[in-house]
Amino acid sequence: MKNVLVINGPNLNLLGEREPGIYGNDTYESICAEIKECAQSLGFDSCECIQSNHEGVIIDAIHAARLDKCGIVINAGAFTHYSYAIRDAISAVKIPVIEVHISNIHARDIFRETSVIAPVCTGQIAGFGKDSYLLGLRALYNML
Amino acid sequence: MKNVLVINGPNLNLLGEREPGIYGNDTYESICAEIKECAQSLGFDSCECIQSNHEGVIIDAIHAARLDKCGIVINAGAFTHYSYAIRDAISAVKIPVIEVHISNIHARDIFRETSVIAPVCTGQIAGFGKDSYLLGLRALYNML
Amino acid sequence: MKNVLVINGPNLNLLGEREPGIYGNDTYESICAEIKECAQSLGFDSCECIQSNHEGVIIDAIHAARLDKCGIVINAGAFTHYSYAIRDAISAVKIPVIEVHISNIHARDIFRETSVIAPVCTGQIAGFGKDSYLLGLRALYNML
Amino acid sequence: MKNVLVINGPNLNLLGEREPGIYGNDTYESICAEIKECAQSLGFDSCECIQSNHEGVIIDAIHAARLDKCGIVINAGAFTHYSYAIRDAISAVKIPVIEVHISNIHARDIFRETSVIAPVCTGQIAGFGKDSYLLGLRALYNML
Amino acid sequence: MKNVLVINGPNLNLLGEREPGIYGNDTYESICAEIKECAQSLGFDSCECIQSNHEGVIIDAIHAARLDKCGIVINAGAFTHYSYAIRDAISAVKIPVIEVHISNIHARDIFRETSVIAPVCTGQIAGFGKDSYLLGLRALYNML
Amino acid sequence: MKNVLVINGPNLNLLGEREPGIYGNDTYESICAEIKECAQSLGFDSCECIQSNHEGVIIDAIHAARLDKCGIVINAGAFTHYSYAIRDAISAVKIPVIEVHISNIHARDIFRETSVIAPVCTGQIAGFGKDSYLLGLRALYNML
Amino acid sequence: MKNVLVINGPNLNLLGEREPGIYGNDTYESICAEIKECAQSLGFDSCECIQSNHEGVIIDAIHAARLDKCGIVINAGAFTHYSYAIRDAISAVKIPVIEVHISNIHARDIFRETSVIAPVCTGQIAGFGKDSYLLGLRALYNML
Amino acid sequence: MKNVLVINGPNLNLLGEREPGIYGNDTYESICAEIKECAQSLGFDSCECIQSNHEGVIIDAIHAARLDKCGIVINAGAFTHYSYAIRDAISAVKIPVIEVHISNIHARDIFRETSVIAPVCTGQIAGFGKDSYLLGLRALYNML
Amino acid sequence: MKNVLVINGPNLNLLGEREPGIYGNDTYESICAEIKECAQSLGFDSCECIQSNHEGVIIDAIHAARLDKCGIVINAGAFTHYSYAIRDAISAVKIPVIEVHISNIHARDIFRETSVIAPVCTGQIAGFGKDSYLLGLRALYNML
Amino acid sequence: MKNVLVINGPNLNLLGEREPGIYGNDTYESICAEIKECAQSLGFDSCECIQSNHEGVIIDAIHAARLDKCGIVINAGAFTHYSYAIRDAISAVKIPVIEVHISNIHARDIFRETSVIAPVCTGQIAGFGKDSYLLGLRALYNML
Amino acid sequence: MKNVLVINGPNLNLLGEREPGIYGNDTYESICAEIKECAQSLGFDSCECIQSNHEGVIIDAIHAARLDKCGIVINAGAFTHYSYAIRDAISAVKIPVIEVHISNIHARDIFRETSVIAPVCTGQIAGFGKDSYLLGLRALYNML
Amino acid sequence: MKNVLVINGPNLNLLGEREPGIYGNDTYESICAEIKECAQSLGFDSCECIQSNHEGVIIDAIHAARLDKCGIVINAGAFTHYSYAIRDAISAVKIPVIEVHISNIHARDIFRETSVIAPVCTGQIAGFGKDSYLLGLRALYNML
Repeated sequence: MKNVLVINGPNLNLLGEREPGIYGNDTYESICAEIKECAQSLGFDSCECIQSNHEGVIIDAIHAARLDKCGIVINAGAFTHYSYAIRDAISAVKIPVIEVHISNIHARDIFRETSVIAPVCTGQIAGFGKDSYLLGLRALYNML
Repeated sequence: MKNVLVINGPNLNLLGEREPGIYGNDTYESICAEIKECAQSLGFDSCECIQSNHEGVIIDAIHAARLDKCGIVINAGAFTHYSYAIRDAISAVKIPVIEVHISNIHARDIFRETSVIAPVCTGQIAGFGKDSYLLGLRALYNML
Repeated sequence: MKNVLVINGPNLNLLGEREPGIYGNDTYESICAEIKECAQSLGFDSCECIQSNHEGVIIDAIHAARLDKCGIVINAGAFTHYSYAIRDAISAVKIPVIEVHISNIHARDIFRETSVIAPVCTGQIAGFGKDSYLLGLRALYNML
Repeated sequence: MKNVLVINGPNLNLLGEREPGIYGNDTYESICAEIKECAQSLGFDSCECIQSNHEGVIIDAIHAARLDKCGIVINAGAFTHYSYAIRDAISAVKIPVIEVHISNIHARDIFRETSVIAPVCTGQIAGFGKDSYLLGLRALYNML
Repeated sequence: MKNVLVINGPNLNLLGEREPGIYGNDTYESICAEIKECAQSLGFDSCECIQSNHEGVIIDAIHAARLDKCGIVINAGAFTHYSYAIRDAISAVKIPVIEVHISNIHARDIFRETSVIAPVCTGQIAGFGKDSYLLGLRALYNML
Repeated sequence: MKNVLVINGPNLNLLGEREPGIYGNDTYESICAEIKECAQSLGFDSCECIQSNHEGVIIDAIHAARLDKCGIVINAGAFTHYSYAIRDAISAVKIPVIEVHISNIHARDIFRETSVIAPVCTGQIAGFGKDSYLLGLRALYNML
Repeated sequence: MKNVLVINGPNLNLLGEREPGIYGNDTYESICAEIKECAQSLGFDSCECIQSNHEGVIIDAIHAARLDKCGIVINAGAFTHYSYAIRDAISAVKIPVIEVHISNIHARDIFRETSVIAPVCTGQIAGFGKDSYLLGLRALYNML
Repeated sequence: MKNVLVINGPNLNLLGEREPGIYGNDTYESICAEIKECAQSLGFDSCECIQSNHEGVIIDAIHAARLDKCGIVINAGAFTHYSYAIRDAISAVKIPVIEVHISNIHARDIFRETSVIAPVCTGQIAGFGKDSYLLGLRALYNML
Repeated sequence: MKNVLVINGPNLNLLGEREPGIYGNDTYESICAEIKECAQSLGFDSCECIQSNHEGVIIDAIHAARLDKCGIVINAGAFTHYSYAIRDAISAVKIPVIEVHISNIHARDIFRETSVIAPVCTGQIAGFGKDSYLLGLRALYNML
Repeated sequence: MKNVLVINGPNLNLLGEREPGIYGNDTYESICAEIKECAQSLGFDSCECIQSNHEGVIIDAIHAARLDKCGIVINAGAFTHYSYAIRDAISAVKIPVIEVHISNIHARDIFRETSVIAPVCTGQIAGFGKDSYLLGLRALYNML
Repeated sequence: MKNVLVINGPNLNLLGEREPGIYGNDTYESICAEIKECAQSLGFDSCECIQSNHEGVIIDAIHAARLDKCGIVINAGAFTHYSYAIRDAISAVKIPVIEVHISNIHARDIFRETSVIAPVCTGQIAGFGKDSYLLGLRALYNML
Repeated sequence: MKNVLVINGPNLNLLGEREPGIYGNDTYESICAEIKECAQSLGFDSCECIQSNHEGVIIDAIHAARLDKCGIVINAGAFTHYSYAIRDAISAVKIPVIEVHISNIHARDIFRETSVIAPVCTGQIAGFGKDSYLLGLRALYNML
């Protein structure tokens, strides 16, 4: 079964409203709809999207995914830069995890240049707006 | 409507009991009472005080405040020093946020010198004991 | 009353399944059973074991322990390396806290070399597999 | 006798003219007038305002203040970032010294993030425009 | 006219032969064929692939591309980590440039973590083997 | 044959006399007696204790131990922080080596935070006074 | 009116006497004469030369220059490397300021490599002996 | 014979087109014409201008210049910041080399602050637009 | 003629009053008297003592001393740690300069560990209270 | 077939002329002759010497050598310190590569202390003048 | 009883022969003679001089001195820069220890700027040749 | 008389037994035999080999060698990375010293990259197994 989980981390629930110059005008809900549509068209059996501002909730979700998902696409938001706990969660599950970012994190504040989860993810896609999620799904599908 | 939210971060629920040499003898509850009284006397329409040891709860509260508050006074406790997620939450809302600290964070452990939220707050008030909150309220009121 | 609290941080619920080459084959549940048996044989009146992937839950538990526990043995998992909030919680309670680690954190990734909680704990035991917990209990018992 | 000294460091004599986007349109003279009015209304017996571009003049003034002032509010301008001599002067006198800044020094050039005088001041207020001085006076008054 | 240039930097001519555990078994030629096929299927009018071990040749190619290409997909190889000259070339042309890497550069030697060209590229795709190129083409096509 | 060697490095001969607030009041001789008693009660066949202020003597002892000891408990004193030669000696022998410290080295001078021998030891026990040695013996016994 | 101010910072009054191998044999007075002659020949209406070992005097002079000078040529001597107060003074005035140095500051002690005033000056000329001043005058004249 | 070589490094062939806000509107060709005119009017016997995006070509040119040129004016572009090979070439020839930059490299990206060739050049002129070349020629002429 | 100048930098006028636990109970005046007495007994022809909180005054004094003094004993106070201008003044004069400190600057704040003037002084004497001055005089006398 | 390639990087064509105090008086040509003679006497079937100031040419040569050479002796000149592209070329070929330097790179400028190619070479020989090449040939021959 | 121990660390036995430009022409023996004569003339009851190239011997000597000496004058040679074991030995004994150096360690190699023993010594005297020892004796005598 | 001393530092007595994957299977004794044979064949009059785990013994040996040896070949083992005392010993004797290493120290732990003795040795040979000693002897012989 090809089920994919798409995780969005802190503050991404405000997409469309939050700094649209950087993150675009689409809302979290509309992007989820596009993600699900894309997943279906690529051939995934299911696509679940979750968002949380709570690090623990994200860790729990990664753990759960190891039971019934074939892979994860994650935009960990600011947790990207310091959550070694999420990093360990990714290491602990055996399914592939694709790291995505809406903005080019390498062209902004210096603290955004470091992703503590990157070394344990399969790969990173950053800077393509909402398309980063769709490219992440495709990358995941191709490697399955 | 001039509604203000006062957020206290981790371990501040133990005020009065925790290291009183640094944080003073007043309890969290008595300080909240003083804060509310001060807010009323300054002319705020309402003043809500919350405390949480959960980063996610604080982020959720900042998000919610954008809908019905005119500003936030925040003592993020130890999250001050590493929560880029709270920083992004502050950036994401458009209301002014005042950073306050009971102790002089610039005169203690070296890790306390860095506030990752300071660059996105309006200003910082640190070192005046519980008066830091009252000065923060006043600073917020004056800029409205 | 000699009650002890044993706290396990993020991802330790996956023990036995997660990277067994590093963390061993015993499950979290079986290790808890060994811990409780050891605590009893040492002479503790009670031993409570909790695990959480949520930083806030761990802080709350440390706070609560100050009321009815004589000490804490904590494996903070990845929070060890960045949670100044847990550090402040440990400082805020007056009971002894023993830091333990299953693996030798000084012989792995560079970020694991730094424990931000170590300076406020009584001592550190690392690298002895599940025996680290039992040695931690013993160390705690001996100092009471 | 409650006499307060307000010290302004280098380049603050150009207030109103210098980078008004950062420092505002009020002149040094008009801000001094507001400061004095505020000091009087708070209950200070007197309020002296001085400004100098000379580090030595500021040190001399801090020394002199120990004889007839109850406290100092200081905006040390760029000396904030390197004058260990002013820091030692503050340490040497026993009256409280409040550090204030017009702009949020934590959100500008990286060299402005470090205040070498902060560790020896009572507290810091930064980012509230000319209101920083008035809040500083109030903070000082409250602690007397 | 939708013409795309795909640039491969130093040592990528040895693909298939060089460290296949990291870079895979496909040769440079076969990957070029796949790239061109993908470009055609996406709707690009043409797709040119070049490879060079000479920094200057790559700069010249980027310059030339501004005249008749709509975008560039670049795997700059080791130049990624120090060629500020290529960075300036990318800044100097006005067409979008997508940075791709076969391996996950964030999970290898520490010097590979820094991409000096990333801040001036549109986005980065790393870690998906030869699929990184195809995802890069797609990302470019979508933004045109 | 279960023979254990307990090595004490520089200045530990002054135990009981040297900074008793940090290192306690027990003398080196009395601690050795407790160590030997503990080793016997745990089931070790023999327990040899040596102390030296000479790095070379400690290296020679580690080398010799590979011939007739089953493990080593070492408090390398200040050599902990810079003796790569002792580190290499530990690597060179194949028996387990347990690093112990009387004080919590993570809560003192910054140079004491780094143990250059930790990455090649089995594990580390620090902060429990003379009990650190006894816990180290136990840890060693349990892993044999 | 094309009036230019040439400022020399600390120790430059000893030119000709001080380390002639680095700074040459011409005295401060003779260099001033050459500077004035050059200014006149370039077409400046007037050229004032000042020297001071007092940071405050230099700041005052920069401030005053904004009223009746069209530009400044400054050799700030050792203040170049740490006087953020002079930097702020340069930022505060709106006339162009040219930074000059007699010696090549990039080829001497490491602390001389950093000029804290360079980011707010129009440009920098260093290493040409007394000719640096004359080139600085010319550069200023050309941009007016 | 007073022959001068003017070297332009990578991307300077795009002058006039590349980021005109920083580098101005004049083309490389028109600037070369001005340079040659200036050289002639200063009294140089000849002035050769070359530009290359190839580090090796620039090194070869520096080597050749030692045979028939009296000095070099070089704008090494981005090679300024990392080409130790060009640095060694400058050291290897015995003629004076003047480093010039169109923009003020000390007021831009942090990597532009370091010039690895500065310590072996005679002097540096930066920030005066195309006039930097002309001042460099003059500085060279004056020292011959 | 053996004339010696003793320079005291910022805040040393408050000796006896300022942090007596560190700097002792003797006043600046009484220490000067002891210094002069000691100089006389050693055989100096004269001994002048000056103190200033103004960096420029100290530089001027060092300059003047080159004309009629055989050496300088200097306690530069906090200027020790950042005044490259005083450093250059010491380099510029040819008479020996002895650096002294009342307290052990190597055992206090980290910023006090660095003396920017030490590399150009003859030697350093620190940590002996007022005796540091007397030892400095003796050291100077012995080398004449 | 025992064929060896000896590569010399930038500026080594000027041997004998360039800084003879560091690099000796022998010309590149005469050293090549000695190298070839030594190779022959050691038993190599052939010895090819190349020199280039172009990084790309060196990479191409390393690539080509994998087809018909048994090993490489390389003095990469200044490329030693930053050419990760040459490093990757060495990694990509499977023949042994010996790094040699005429001068002791560990005793000169700080940037020369770091060799980015050293970790992928078999070994390093530095500081023996032209004899470094001959020792490198011998080392290579011995390991074949 | 006023007995003093003078310790000389590694390589100081070669005084007079070793780098006389830095360390002078007097031999170790002749300096010892001067030291003893000075100690006697100051009023010490005895003065013992030892030298060793063995860190352990120096630690043993410091330990022994606590029993019958009133203070130590130590030139720890290169051990100054890394022997935390000697530092701990100094901390462990309660008699005053004066650190001396023949050369000005602040004006030589960068590694010599750091003295790891300075924070636990009474004071430091450096740069006065053999007179440093005599000044150290005097400093010690004065504080007894 | 051409006498050579070959020094082996800590842990090299365990050659053949210690980490043979890195250090090879030959014992210290067999390598000494090869070294002596090689020295004889090269033309040295004598060759003495010593090994010690004691830093002081190595320093003493270096000192003694200045009297009757023409040069030293040293593998200082782990002392390479921190023994400034051995460094000073090498500086103090006037005979050439060649630094050798069995493994490529530039390709292992990061602390092994720094040789504190390299700047005072004639040259360095690393990475050729036991052949490093033989090449070192040859290098020494050639320079005599």
